[in-house]
Amino acid sequence: MANALAGDLDAVNTLIRERMASKHAPRIPEVTAHLVEAGGKRLRPMLTLASARLCGYEGPYHVHLAATVEFIHTATLLHDDVVDESKQRRGRPTANLLWDNQSSVLVGDYLFARSFQLMVETGSLRVLDILSNAAATIAEGEVLQLSVAENTATTEDTYIQVVRGKTAALFSAATEVGGVIAGQPDDVVKGLFDYGDALGIAFQMVDDLLDYGGTGGDIGKNIGDDFRERKLTLPVIRTIAAGEDRAFWERTIGKGDQRDGDLEEAMAQMARCGALESTRETALSYAASAKTALDAAPDHPLKEMLTDLADYVVARVI
Amino acid sequence: MANALAGDLDAVNTLIRERMASKHAPRIPEVTAHLVEAGGKRLRPMLTLASARLCGYEGPYHVHLAATVEFIHTATLLHDDVVDESKQRRGRPTANLLWDNQSSVLVGDYLFARSFQLMVETGSLRVLDILSNAAATIAEGEVLQLSVAENTATTEDTYIQVVRGKTAALFSAATEVGGVIAGQPDDVVKGLFDYGDALGIAFQMVDDLLDYGGTGGDIGKNIGDDFRERKLTLPVIRTIAAGEDRAFWERTIGKGDQRDGDLEEAMAQMARCGALESTRETALSYAASAKTALDAAPDHPLKEMLTDLADYVVARVI
Repeated sequence: MANALAGDLDAVNTLIRERMASKHAPRIPEVTAHLVEAGGKRLRPMLTLASARLCGYEGPYHVHLAATVEFIHTATLLHDDVVDESKQRRGRPTANLLWDNQSSVLVGDYLFARSFQLMVETGSLRVLDILSNAAATIAEGEVLQLSVAENTATTEDTYIQVVRGKTAALFSAATEVGGVIAGQPDDVVKGLFDYGDALGIAFQMVDDLLDYGGTGGDIGKNIGDDFRERKLTLPVIRTIAAGEDRAFWERTIGKGDQRDGDLEEAMAQMARCGALESTRETALSYAASAKTALDAAPDHPLKEMLTDLADYVVARVI
Repeated sequence: MANALAGDLDAVNTLIRERMASKHAPRIPEVTAHLVEAGGKRLRPMLTLASARLCGYEGPYHVHLAATVEFIHTATLLHDDVVDESKQRRGRPTANLLWDNQSSVLVGDYLFARSFQLMVETGSLRVLDILSNAAATIAEGEVLQLSVAENTATTEDTYIQVVRGKTAALFSAATEVGGVIAGQPDDVVKGLFDYGDALGIAFQMVDDLLDYGGTGGDIGKNIGDDFRERKLTLPVIRTIAAGEDRAFWERTIGKGDQRDGDLEEAMAQMARCGALESTRETALSYAASAKTALDAAPDHPLKEMLTDLADYVVARVI
């Protein structure tokens, strides 16, 4: 997909670099560049570019919207790393470690504001509505995750709620605005939204699975981070639901009393009750839903690319 | 002023309570209510209401904009308290202390997003432009403040730059959007902007002065907070410029080596070189500029109220 949209993506990168500048506070581009130039896949902006182009859009604003989406994502990462007290991101030390929490919070705020400036430039109130709603849903999902962390009674419904907020809301907004800016009818826009929503959920499930080693190889992720942060991800929820050694989960996740060998024990229980395999299957079914949602979209070579992308997202665990 | 706008302010408070709710994350309204219900003066929303009414506005959206401005302000306070590691705000423990830094960061993000939703509802792209620019300027000012903290070579120009960002940008946006939503001509809108800008600068200077005891009485502020946080505020900059004991400032503010009696010594030096008095005079002159800027505004009883407000802001140090 990257090849077909290479020119657009260059324009997005140029716009990102231009807008992350600050006349008065040079620390802003320093912190932002650390993250933005760190070789992220630009997955979310690519979704916006592909969705707009797939719908025949020829105007300039898909580039603004793609940069908007990447800024919102980057701001979220900066704040997440403060919230999670992370030390590594994309294989490098996090901004909160290299600079400080203060810079991460405030530079994140700056990028949020810059993202709103970019979307205002499109002049589309509908786009503004979609993206401001997405921003609220993201923050709500993150707070919800915080509230249910360490709670071993968390249900799958709540998990999906959290994932829709913290991950899928930006994916679905990214694809939806592509259709909206291209002036597409409601059913096409709805299809693009549904694609992004299902893709985002599949993406997060794969991420949660890989945190316990999953079935895939090395992808630069630290195995066990979610366990140490006591997150109620799907593999954990399903293992607890399967009736596996509840006292173990209450001690390690509920109370946070973790000892040597606990991560290995957690992974062994997950494998034994089939939670890893069933999480993988659920992720694959969301990826399949994403592909089906594209039926409403116009025929275009980029449609195949979006289909391939849904496969790619889950390929890490196949 | 509060009386004339009492009905509008009730509507703002109702809207704020409605929009700080969250279907999925009950911690959001808890944290927000702690701050929003803590008896803040609603100074910024009052500026928007008064500016719009002064210009004869009869529509419903000044209420949305006033709530927008209060949400941006509240989000900023939540993030500031994390950045400053504050323990008290408005005489009560801060949210980061009662809950945690995570909640303060994420609930602040939620309120930012909610503020954008509110302004999108007005349907005015010009208002969106002004407020998204203000949000970027605020964050930029905060990062700049972070970068120059502890630097005893900070100039008055840089100080004004920081203050314009962290304080005056929201004041001037609050008054400007009042004029814009009322469809006023450019000179009136410019006058309202200039009023808010000068008022915000006067407000911050008074705040910085009171942090060193100023000349006023008790206003619930902890004297010496800025000194302990090594902030380069105007009284400090002017005392250093006056050639007072540079080694003392380099040790206490530059290096952060503070001992018993240092705050008293700082205040004594400030009084001796006239830095407190001259800061007070500069604040008064900004308040006077604010009043002059109102000349362009239509004749209306609320104009006198805004004039009185400029006096009120500096009255704490007269």
